[in-house]
Amino acid sequence: MYDGIVQELIDELGRLPGVGPKSAQRIAFHIIQTESFDVSRLAHVLQTVRERVRFCELCGNVGESERCGICTDPRRAQDTICVVEEPKDVVAIERTREYKGLYHVLGGALNPMNGVGPDQLRIQGLLSRLQDDTVQEVIIATDPNVEGEATATYLIRTLQPLGITVSRLASGLPVGGDLEFADEMTLGRAFEGRRQLH
Amino acid sequence: MYDGIVQELIDELGRLPGVGPKSAQRIAFHIIQTESFDVSRLAHVLQTVRERVRFCELCGNVGESERCGICTDPRRAQDTICVVEEPKDVVAIERTREYKGLYHVLGGALNPMNGVGPDQLRIQGLLSRLQDDTVQEVIIATDPNVEGEATATYLIRTLQPLGITVSRLASGLPVGGDLEFADEMTLGRAFEGRRQLH
Repeated sequence: MYDGIVQELIDELGRLPGVGPKSAQRIAFHIIQTESFDVSRLAHVLQTVRERVRFCELCGNVGESERCGICTDPRRAQDTICVVEEPKDVVAIERTREYKGLYHVLGGALNPMNGVGPDQLRIQGLLSRLQDDTVQEVIIATDPNVEGEATATYLIRTLQPLGITVSRLASGLPVGGDLEFADEMTLGRAFEGRRQLH
Repeated sequence: MYDGIVQELIDELGRLPGVGPKSAQRIAFHIIQTESFDVSRLAHVLQTVRERVRFCELCGNVGESERCGICTDPRRAQDTICVVEEPKDVVAIERTREYKGLYHVLGGALNPMNGVGPDQLRIQGLLSRLQDDTVQEVIIATDPNVEGEATATYLIRTLQPLGITVSRLASGLPVGGDLEFADEMTLGRAFEGRRQLH
């Protein structure tokens, strides 16, 4: 509908996840009309990100060198590995400042319907990290949905024979939420996981 | 929270309108993880758009030359000008295939609170297009909100002394909508603008 390059920009932006045709148009006109918008900086960052970003060869997290900042940090507890699906889960957990151990990023969750089996995930890499008996506990922090639960179940079965403590993040009512608005699954989990008060 | 360049990309994406921190993160990881995503094409289009896109010197629409495709099209009726706020309004009207005349893009609407007065809009350019008596009708198609209505009122007052027919797009119930869900303003306008059936 637009002349040449404007439509090209809208099309390119529309390829991004969560950006529909309307948002793409809005973003395109923002870029065209806002004098102060630094197009070359965005273009440069886009190029650089592809060249520089790599996945940590040990844990699979994103970084700019062979090993990520967490894997190379000697202050992190070397005896605990928290298993997550995606790099953004690492960031979410880091934000809590509760966890001081290492991570292992699977790169997704089991989803046989979409062709994601154990071989498509970084599970072999996790097993080889458990060889030398440094790791005492593996905390499974996959998403609390169908795929995440399936992945957790698979991991528990695979890791238990190794004699390592395997734990799973608690499911229950979100803090600050209203009990009446919780779905049945969450409320069911909250009952299942209830803790005795002394 | 992320290492260097990843966070830079998230920050840059977060500057786009309608892209919050969560979407920025999602888009960034899509760009990083999707092998098939052509980063250099997006980067290239971003650069080119700034170099090539200009505003039509006559009507203010976006294009790639001094005059836009509509202003230079001899098949368009030269005696009617439709006044809109933004280039995207031109595209919306073109999509209806109802209108065959010319456009004039104001570049916004009157909004004294944000420092947008008549001098900030392309109103002088509109007046000079009406000098040579070619134009017989000006259709005001600013948005049906407070700023758009204020702009329409201002334009009607400015144009009426010139002896040109000035009209305003009809307000009323949206086609395909439910009367019971219409807000009072819209319903009020629909009554005001009711048409007698023969």
